[in-house]
Amino acid sequence: MKIADLQRQKEGSARMDIPDLQEQVEEMVHWLAVHGADPEGGVTRHLYTASWTEAQQALERKMKEWGLETYYDEVGNLYGRLASSHSEAGAIVTGSHVDTVKCGGKYDGAFGIVAGLLALRYLKETYGPPVRNIEVVSLCEEEGSRFPLTFWGSTNVTGIAPWDRISQIQDAEGVPFTEAMIEAGFGLGRYRNPRREDILSFIELHIEQGAVLERDGTPIGIVEQIVGQKRYTIECTGEANHAGTTPMDLRKDALRGSSQMIVAIMESADRAGAPLVATVGNLKVEPNVSNVIPNKATFTLDIRHPQGDALDAFCEEAIEACYTIAQERGLHIMVNKHLDARPVEMDASLLRRIERICRHQDVPYKLMPSGAGHDAQIMAPRYPTSLIFVPSRRGISHSPEEYTSKEDLAAGVQVLIQLLYELGYAKETE
Amino acid sequence: MKIADLQRQKEGSARMDIPDLQEQVEEMVHWLAVHGADPEGGVTRHLYTASWTEAQQALERKMKEWGLETYYDEVGNLYGRLASSHSEAGAIVTGSHVDTVKCGGKYDGAFGIVAGLLALRYLKETYGPPVRNIEVVSLCEEEGSRFPLTFWGSTNVTGIAPWDRISQIQDAEGVPFTEAMIEAGFGLGRYRNPRREDILSFIELHIEQGAVLERDGTPIGIVEQIVGQKRYTIECTGEANHAGTTPMDLRKDALRGSSQMIVAIMESADRAGAPLVATVGNLKVEPNVSNVIPNKATFTLDIRHPQGDALDAFCEEAIEACYTIAQERGLHIMVNKHLDARPVEMDASLLRRIERICRHQDVPYKLMPSGAGHDAQIMAPRYPTSLIFVPSRRGISHSPEEYTSKEDLAAGVQVLIQLLYELGYAKETE
Repeated sequence: MKIADLQRQKEGSARMDIPDLQEQVEEMVHWLAVHGADPEGGVTRHLYTASWTEAQQALERKMKEWGLETYYDEVGNLYGRLASSHSEAGAIVTGSHVDTVKCGGKYDGAFGIVAGLLALRYLKETYGPPVRNIEVVSLCEEEGSRFPLTFWGSTNVTGIAPWDRISQIQDAEGVPFTEAMIEAGFGLGRYRNPRREDILSFIELHIEQGAVLERDGTPIGIVEQIVGQKRYTIECTGEANHAGTTPMDLRKDALRGSSQMIVAIMESADRAGAPLVATVGNLKVEPNVSNVIPNKATFTLDIRHPQGDALDAFCEEAIEACYTIAQERGLHIMVNKHLDARPVEMDASLLRRIERICRHQDVPYKLMPSGAGHDAQIMAPRYPTSLIFVPSRRGISHSPEEYTSKEDLAAGVQVLIQLLYELGYAKETE
Repeated sequence: MKIADLQRQKEGSARMDIPDLQEQVEEMVHWLAVHGADPEGGVTRHLYTASWTEAQQALERKMKEWGLETYYDEVGNLYGRLASSHSEAGAIVTGSHVDTVKCGGKYDGAFGIVAGLLALRYLKETYGPPVRNIEVVSLCEEEGSRFPLTFWGSTNVTGIAPWDRISQIQDAEGVPFTEAMIEAGFGLGRYRNPRREDILSFIELHIEQGAVLERDGTPIGIVEQIVGQKRYTIECTGEANHAGTTPMDLRKDALRGSSQMIVAIMESADRAGAPLVATVGNLKVEPNVSNVIPNKATFTLDIRHPQGDALDAFCEEAIEACYTIAQERGLHIMVNKHLDARPVEMDASLLRRIERICRHQDVPYKLMPSGAGHDAQIMAPRYPTSLIFVPSRRGISHSPEEYTSKEDLAAGVQVLIQLLYELGYAKETE
């Protein structure tokens, strides 16, 4: 590093001149994606599978190679530590999850891990041992893709993992959760207790998985809150009848009624406008035969908003609209709410610090909600937590087409380096 | 039979006093339904299966017991003949199909066969040999429930069965059509050629499978025409995206678009009014995951109307509406028409004769279209054909709940007896 850069960085006033950072981060993303490359396209790296183990082992080797202390915890979270000389010092932790959905992208989760790795290498090489421990974590699981269980990594770190439930859980092939964990070498008492009491801050860098930053031409999103979310299943029952012999006015068509409900909810979401989003992603029709009037249609409703009150109000109105339509069409509906997650606020002081860094680095940024769930929402109630986004091309995620340009990836790493520097090396943080 | 009844009947002026006719017809319906009684409810009697064979054999025994000559044809249509003394005389044929849908009702098809059987027994016992042969037929297949092929019985009778296609056809378990037919003992040259050149009239008695007769309190429906029908598959393509991170105005939601199309078509069908009916019975969503905006929704559209021109005009308008909605929502649609059946007229002279019989028997009747397809539509272009309906409770059919009261069943049989008498015994028909 040049003296001038060092000076600038100490002043927190500019981007570091790291040769080939763009190429390095892109190369690291591709390198990690090899482990779990799916013949059907994209990356499949499900918890405790062979590709997952390979990826964690590759990361462990890379951490060691770059001079970090490594350790696993009992559930398979992998840490690389740039140790402070004060053994009692707490830890600044950055990272994200290593698991993917089936045929997922290269960036979701993975980018937060490789960004942390690159940042720690840079800090170690440039400044040596920090005042506080700085760690990168490859969290074992977030997606819930193999087992019906999400955030297994971060809930274990924060001590809220549902261990009482896992004995009943199995994957689609019938493999019990515990068996899979033991098969992968965890859950046998060989490693540290996952629960962390010493985390001073948790920082997650992640792709947006939406198109807002791209549309605005902004490389950095600083998340203010992770949205609240409600999920419903709405079962709409009418009467099956013959498509040819039942006059329109004698029908109790469950699909027609459901279609009307979907249109009404969507139009109401249009009127409510951003940041509210409402989605019907799953719809099942019975008997689902072309010449029989459907007697049943069951659909999911996923509604998200960063303000709890606004979320509640919209949901109440949407459900009310469904009841009204059902009544008009002579249908019966059953509404089952199976998720009600409140919005989670990110740490305000970290947020201001990141804003300042962006201004000093002269990189455009945007304060925004996160519409997706992230490990940061599990960490936030326990540790000061921040979530930083980089753009996703066309907003596409959970798909082999997921993509973020190397310029945007590098902009995220630059911000992360400065933030970790300030949090890890300052004698006293502000 | 009492002398007075005989006198009345010869005048074509009243119902016969057949002791226990209501009980007899109901009992016969229940008797046939035993063969193929499904543990899941209702009757499953698919072509060339064990229950189908059992039912045909039971019918054959009953025909013989009641003094009818019996014979099969090469595809398994079973005939019971009340033979004329003139060997050259043509045949008056009545009957319907013996096969059912999965978990179907006791009446669909079956009623037309048992009604014919009872009528022939009565005519034989009362009048002896007719001037023209009178036959009851148990047609082997109409529903298309086991194989992707409908009207196998009647298309063989009329000589239009698609024999060139059957080598490619198999059932859901992969059993080839030809193998199933041979297994059941047919298609091996043991029986008569199914094609009939000697049919003078074909009369089908069937349950309405709609609620029009019940609503009007009318026991007899005389079908003027079987509706024309078009079936489409409409595939609507948008873009899959994250339910939480994609603002409403950036979405290309295939399910939202399809729901809008369904609502628009249904409202337009309401405006068109009876006798037009439009049904979306089958809808498939992809990827069909609650937190992913659907990128594809594929639905069927079934539209029926007794006038060809009105059918064409409505379909054109409905498809046009789908294209307009797709364009508004940034979606792509592909419309595939896979059925285009023109309306089929029933024989006008038979219709007038049945009207007269109803008036003489003092039984309320209604001229109406048939919204469902029936063997009569295959027979009609070749032989003078008539289709007579009795009410279906709540219009329910293709269901274990299918039901027609014994009073209504018997009213249908009474009309059939008189009609067969006039067609079969008169020296010269009018």
